[in-house]
Amino acid sequence: MNAIRAPENPIVTPDMVLASRPDMEVVGVFNAGATRFGDDTVLLLRVSEAPRKLASGGISAAIYNADTRRIEIKRWMENTKGLDASDPRAVIVEGTTWLTSMSHLRVARSRDGIHFEVEGTPALSPSNQYEAFGIEDPRITLLDGTYWINYTAVSQHGITTALASTKDFRTFERHGVIFPPPNRDVTIFPEKIGGRYVALHRPMPEGLGKPSIWVASSPDLISWGNHRVVATARPGSWDDEKIGGGAVPFRVHSGNRDAWLAVYHGVTSSPAAYSLGALLLDLHDPGKVLARSREPILKPETAYEREGFYGNVVFTCGLVAEADIVRIYYGAADAVMAVADLSLAEILAGLSEP
Amino acid sequence: MNAIRAPENPIVTPDMVLASRPDMEVVGVFNAGATRFGDDTVLLLRVSEAPRKLASGGISAAIYNADTRRIEIKRWMENTKGLDASDPRAVIVEGTTWLTSMSHLRVARSRDGIHFEVEGTPALSPSNQYEAFGIEDPRITLLDGTYWINYTAVSQHGITTALASTKDFRTFERHGVIFPPPNRDVTIFPEKIGGRYVALHRPMPEGLGKPSIWVASSPDLISWGNHRVVATARPGSWDDEKIGGGAVPFRVHSGNRDAWLAVYHGVTSSPAAYSLGALLLDLHDPGKVLARSREPILKPETAYEREGFYGNVVFTCGLVAEADIVRIYYGAADAVMAVADLSLAEILAGLSEP
Repeated sequence: MNAIRAPENPIVTPDMVLASRPDMEVVGVFNAGATRFGDDTVLLLRVSEAPRKLASGGISAAIYNADTRRIEIKRWMENTKGLDASDPRAVIVEGTTWLTSMSHLRVARSRDGIHFEVEGTPALSPSNQYEAFGIEDPRITLLDGTYWINYTAVSQHGITTALASTKDFRTFERHGVIFPPPNRDVTIFPEKIGGRYVALHRPMPEGLGKPSIWVASSPDLISWGNHRVVATARPGSWDDEKIGGGAVPFRVHSGNRDAWLAVYHGVTSSPAAYSLGALLLDLHDPGKVLARSREPILKPETAYEREGFYGNVVFTCGLVAEADIVRIYYGAADAVMAVADLSLAEILAGLSEP
Repeated sequence: MNAIRAPENPIVTPDMVLASRPDMEVVGVFNAGATRFGDDTVLLLRVSEAPRKLASGGISAAIYNADTRRIEIKRWMENTKGLDASDPRAVIVEGTTWLTSMSHLRVARSRDGIHFEVEGTPALSPSNQYEAFGIEDPRITLLDGTYWINYTAVSQHGITTALASTKDFRTFERHGVIFPPPNRDVTIFPEKIGGRYVALHRPMPEGLGKPSIWVASSPDLISWGNHRVVATARPGSWDDEKIGGGAVPFRVHSGNRDAWLAVYHGVTSSPAAYSLGALLLDLHDPGKVLARSREPILKPETAYEREGFYGNVVFTCGLVAEADIVRIYYGAADAVMAVADLSLAEILAGLSEP
């Protein structure tokens, strides 16, 4: 599998993004949704910010307060009683968890799909109690002339998936939580199937079950039902630990039939690594897997993929497919955005019956 | 709070229920849905069965095999390598979890609401891959002339909520998984509100968040959206550990207004106990809590509530409310069915603003 990484990689980095507030700094820009819009490629970036360090030291967290409608910055001294900062992503104070960084979504535009200009202010910021810890990992689906954006909303109520929409990437409308916690990595198909909207989603069972890819359908994009398992982690394979949706599925011609291709992420348990693979799904029943990647189509290999905020990660929320070229935009090491061109024919050739 | 337990309690016990197969025995009958049907009170019992012990000993589990469409019994010797039977509810063999008992649903009928006749065969049994470990905890909602039954479907894919329906409690139609894992304790309101069906549900967040009561709405009972948090565990109170739906909400008149009363379960962390309380919900926006029980309306006190398969548990899936009498059917200690009559006026008097 030849993945041709752009020589310009990483194509978007934190130094290209203005902080949303003077007391915050951008620490990561990754896991962007992607779409064509007019003559441009648009990325909807996940921008991760942390409170600026103070000279006096200490540990800090940002949180959106739905009562005051403001982002508040909490700070503690390292020796605070009952404080646990052993996980760099979180700080636990007397049993309450806070995240050390908070994400919002930001638009970036490019004429060539490689060189992006990042807008100076957020497109979507945390704005209700389900988003108090931030909003993450958007996917963009063009349907009925509207761009539907689903994203992960994180708060002390758990990890949910919420929906927004736009026609112009300037004004956005919110449509609430569409998958209750714990659920993320939702990808909405770009066509109705059998008269209903369809999405892949990734519930995270507790106790029983492993994170797997499910399918659901909807009459209106708001309410979702008919939940079924599509694919699970494969013992002994590169995706043996857990799997979840990646980019929005797109229609392909394979063999003598049309089908859906869904690029997903799989996690290798040891050594831990997030890689990408593909599922070929039945055109009329996308809950049915026709074929699946034997080996990853993209895995962490370069320095910017192996080292960052969370190393050994390539993770996609969006791609642009044109003729044989599948241009995958992906977050690398939870820190920067990168892009690679793959051959659709090669992806299809690497599939086996499940 | 005066809860008048029936002198006949427990009203349904395992010895009143025929096993579904000769190689299984009934070990529990509890957590029944309840409704009026004609002149009868109908309970839809959760009947828990375990494989009969063999003289040669060993540990066993039952599972529905969706490929062969049969229930299979697995048996292991206690000294099997990689076997963990430290939790009596489960056996883990080389990382795979099996449950030591499997539940199905069974109809029981009564003219007086106290003395029940239990049907000889199951009404609903595990019958697909989401039900491989059993089906549990049904709730019954009469809507548009049909009895809608939601129940917990348990399998290695996780704990989900599925939907069935009946008009006569003789034939049943299945409608698939309506809430993906991990989600249980769903209660569907008996009227449309604002043109949509409404349900309380109980997602179980992983890592972030505690099990709480959420509300969702639906155009068709199949697809659910608009998820919002309704109520959470209260530190320092009798429901400090976690909460979830109980009986189907019913309409009451309180003060100068109509509202919904939802009897829910709350768990006390120490000592561990499942008790019942009530939420008064806004008639037009049942996601809004008007008032909540200061103290439990029913808590484990009698021998059959304190000792059983899982002690210190009273847990309701259904009640029958007529005038001032709220007749709560409840599972006691995950072993038997019991019933208690409460005064609606007393329940309402025990509520405080949240």
